[in-house]
Amino acid sequence: MPARTAEDLALMYTPGVGRLAARIATDAGAADAVTGRGNRVAVVSDGTAVLGLGNVGPLAALPVIEGKAALFAQLADIDAVPLCVNVSGTDELVALVRTLAPTFGGINLDDIAAPRCFEVEQRLQAELDIPVFHDDQHGTAIVVLAGLRNALRVVGKRLETARVVVVGAGAAGTAVTKLLREAGAGDTVVCLAEHTNPRRITGGLAEALAGADAVIGLSRPGVLTRELVTTMALDPIVFALANPDPEIRPEQLSGLAAVVATGRSDYPNQINNALAFPGIFRGALNARAPRISTAMQLAAADVLAGLVGDDQLSARRLLPDVLDPQVVPTVSAAVAAVELSRRRANAGDGNAQTKRRRDWVTW
Amino acid sequence: MPARTAEDLALMYTPGVGRLAARIATDAGAADAVTGRGNRVAVVSDGTAVLGLGNVGPLAALPVIEGKAALFAQLADIDAVPLCVNVSGTDELVALVRTLAPTFGGINLDDIAAPRCFEVEQRLQAELDIPVFHDDQHGTAIVVLAGLRNALRVVGKRLETARVVVVGAGAAGTAVTKLLREAGAGDTVVCLAEHTNPRRITGGLAEALAGADAVIGLSRPGVLTRELVTTMALDPIVFALANPDPEIRPEQLSGLAAVVATGRSDYPNQINNALAFPGIFRGALNARAPRISTAMQLAAADVLAGLVGDDQLSARRLLPDVLDPQVVPTVSAAVAAVELSRRRANAGDGNAQTKRRRDWVTW
Repeated sequence: MPARTAEDLALMYTPGVGRLAARIATDAGAADAVTGRGNRVAVVSDGTAVLGLGNVGPLAALPVIEGKAALFAQLADIDAVPLCVNVSGTDELVALVRTLAPTFGGINLDDIAAPRCFEVEQRLQAELDIPVFHDDQHGTAIVVLAGLRNALRVVGKRLETARVVVVGAGAAGTAVTKLLREAGAGDTVVCLAEHTNPRRITGGLAEALAGADAVIGLSRPGVLTRELVTTMALDPIVFALANPDPEIRPEQLSGLAAVVATGRSDYPNQINNALAFPGIFRGALNARAPRISTAMQLAAADVLAGLVGDDQLSARRLLPDVLDPQVVPTVSAAVAAVELSRRRANAGDGNAQTKRRRDWVTW
Repeated sequence: MPARTAEDLALMYTPGVGRLAARIATDAGAADAVTGRGNRVAVVSDGTAVLGLGNVGPLAALPVIEGKAALFAQLADIDAVPLCVNVSGTDELVALVRTLAPTFGGINLDDIAAPRCFEVEQRLQAELDIPVFHDDQHGTAIVVLAGLRNALRVVGKRLETARVVVVGAGAAGTAVTKLLREAGAGDTVVCLAEHTNPRRITGGLAEALAGADAVIGLSRPGVLTRELVTTMALDPIVFALANPDPEIRPEQLSGLAAVVATGRSDYPNQINNALAFPGIFRGALNARAPRISTAMQLAAADVLAGLVGDDQLSARRLLPDVLDPQVVPTVSAAVAAVELSRRRANAGDGNAQTKRRRDWVTW
């Protein structure tokens, strides 16, 4: 709301803000009510893993992070602040984000290289009572899971019995594998990460892919070939998500793959994180959740998949459009409902350990 | 601009932003052209000196800093980001702001206690090639100088020959004294800071005020009394700027002081930093100046004073309104002109030492 009169000015600046400051000084819990903190998210990157470019530094990451902040604002009405930061390593990045916590209701980490990204997220979430979310991991995992659920619907298979191969054990590959297992996927193999390989496949990608129902590429261009996909089970599902150049071009799979998805906007079935992060944060902020749990991520993936009805679902239409106005409210409501259930369960067992003592809010 | 179509999305997010990132990765100078950095200012506080409240911490500072950011946006169309940070001391604050430099075209420091504020500003400005401006010091000094120039016009005195007493040697008092001296004030005494006391007044406030033409209070309520002001020269000028409660209430000076100013919006002559900081930063960003020099501050004070014509000037109207649409463009143009002159002078002497090699831009 713009200041139009001297009275407006006196409210929005001195002396008006002095009264709010005094109130927070004696009651920190009032901050969310009298500031914009509860709707403000920092979108933080150190520029070490920028799209297909790699470690190009924080300045080059800025257009990516600005674009993301703009989507937060447009799609979820979140006051998102792009922050590309020039830090020397993990400790400095953790220290930096920790100092920002008074200003923000949530932290979205972006374009941070593995393995640094894992430690940064874990340490920050352990210290802060606001959600810390590494979108390259969890945003990707949510949308992949939603897309894979619907791809399996298309070919008449079930996640619990499907054989899924994840190629690439970076930030996204690791998170996708974990979330698939949490979702009940029965047989998931990660190439290049042996501890998640229940059948001790050691011979590499060719052996892993033989007879597989789905492959999820989160690695680099050229890793998949038509010949490899030929060895997969009937109606193979291929998610070739390396960005901007996929592991294999969709046109190379014509007549062979039953369903193909990429990270690109110029092919059908774009696996786009923008389907997840706006609604995820909208829901977490609305519920004032202290973290974005695995249960929230699973719920978000389920409702995302459910937004494509049986009459709409096809091999060329796995997921709703990012601009579909149902997406954010649906995901948001699912995430908030998980938080509400958690608090009710905690209250019910007489041992409530909610990190934040705040009222439930509706949206 | 909101994304309305899939094509818009592809431009403002992946893959569009990837092309911009790649361009910056090979040419850092392109960042200002293809990102919002050049119009984005961080409004940073550690919460150690919040208005009249003191060291109440970053969370309590948030409404103040948010209000300030809103004024930056409304008055000068600057993308201002409130950042209240939880730091342990000077080194951590300097390190934090340094890491943010890739994201911002300028840094406005606010509500940071003296003496920390001096070191933080100096170290940051020495390291960064974007303006670093501590508004409690320099913004206050600019508006005080503009107000004092016009108060002296009202009573028919000149800055060069006036005796001015500054009460308080904190961030604002120190900066006001320095800027007054740069502006040519002949005889300025700071109570509590002896090195700026040319006549070796040692007996305190009473001795300093005897015969003074103007007193500028930047200390605490109750420091000035009607009896003290009675000892001043004919037509005394009293700026009682402690906030929110002035050194003396204007009504206690009725029939005695020729001109009274305060920091409050409910009396005439509010000395409001919002007259300076929006135009100062607008001009510095437009000119892509690497710092906000003393020459810029003097120029800003001069044009601010000049905005009140002889026909408007009175003891109850020293300064323009904050919402007067002439203020920001006038201050901005004066600041940018100083930067242009500096560059021309540097280019002319064949020894250009401009820290940034950028084109001049008009606004």
